[in-house]
Amino acid sequence: MSQIQRLGVTRRWSDAVIHNGTAYFVEVPGNVEQDARGQIAETLQLVDERLTQIGSDRTQLLQVTIYLRDLNDAPILNELWDAWVPFGHAPARACVQATLGNPAMRVEMVLTAACVQ
Amino acid sequence: MSQIQRLGVTRRWSDAVIHNGTAYFVEVPGNVEQDARGQIAETLQLVDERLTQIGSDRTQLLQVTIYLRDLNDAPILNELWDAWVPFGHAPARACVQATLGNPAMRVEMVLTAACVQ
Amino acid sequence: MSQIQRLGVTRRWSDAVIHNGTAYFVEVPGNVEQDARGQIAETLQLVDERLTQIGSDRTQLLQVTIYLRDLNDAPILNELWDAWVPFGHAPARACVQATLGNPAMRVEMVLTAACVQ
Repeated sequence: MSQIQRLGVTRRWSDAVIHNGTAYFVEVPGNVEQDARGQIAETLQLVDERLTQIGSDRTQLLQVTIYLRDLNDAPILNELWDAWVPFGHAPARACVQATLGNPAMRVEMVLTAACVQ
Repeated sequence: MSQIQRLGVTRRWSDAVIHNGTAYFVEVPGNVEQDARGQIAETLQLVDERLTQIGSDRTQLLQVTIYLRDLNDAPILNELWDAWVPFGHAPARACVQATLGNPAMRVEMVLTAACVQ
Repeated sequence: MSQIQRLGVTRRWSDAVIHNGTAYFVEVPGNVEQDARGQIAETLQLVDERLTQIGSDRTQLLQVTIYLRDLNDAPILNELWDAWVPFGHAPARACVQATLGNPAMRVEMVLTAACVQ
């Protein structure tokens, strides 16, 4: 059985799971009382913190699926995203609309990144 | 080309695909005439059976995306899920609402797990 | 840090990202003025082209998540899909309904495939 490393393990999920040089993680905004811009900006910041925590960084993202509560927020997402992704290192990306667990939550990101274990 | 192992191959999908020590699979309830609790419980049982089939187990889950037909079922999901996930081994988890292929289906799970090949 | 190979890198995403023998990519129809049948057929053709580009092929697909704008298009998807997937090599597959970034777009596919790097 290959070795699995888990960070931030709770009863329900782990903040990140690393296996075979690949990290799997999900990020949502901590403060859902912010508007869409605030929530998306915070989520990207949390992605940064997670990547640092696992010894990775923005240039190592492989695939990102972004769920937006309302696709009308897509222009805000794209503005913040485009400024955030390091030029030449963009991951594969899908963005779809979906109702999220917390009705006040505007964004949820499911991410895969390369990392050293 | 790396070796790929497929289990339960049908015309449309495989029940599980294993590559490079990682298994990819999707589970849905077999009996969609059950209520949400019954469907979610059955799906988790099918995940168990699949994990056993591929020589893995609940402690080896890496990432799970859960689609619920109706997020009002989330408390039931979380109750069953929390009792099912082995303490200390939770995967990364996302849960969003989505209309599923079969209108009677309340839940669909997309999973990634570590396994020996 | 493992080596990552990116193809078709834009400001916002890469057309494909390869890491550790696994390729991650997303495909959408180029011409969204087509009906569902045309869009799905074009998307499958684009998947073929991408697989060729990364030195892979249809037999190497591991997992595919298909987002349909309208699940009433599922019979068309399944007809085209069943004829497209090589017998005995079907990936794990999930198909859910979701509103997509472009309101005229009927289908989006998120794919994982094995490939030589």
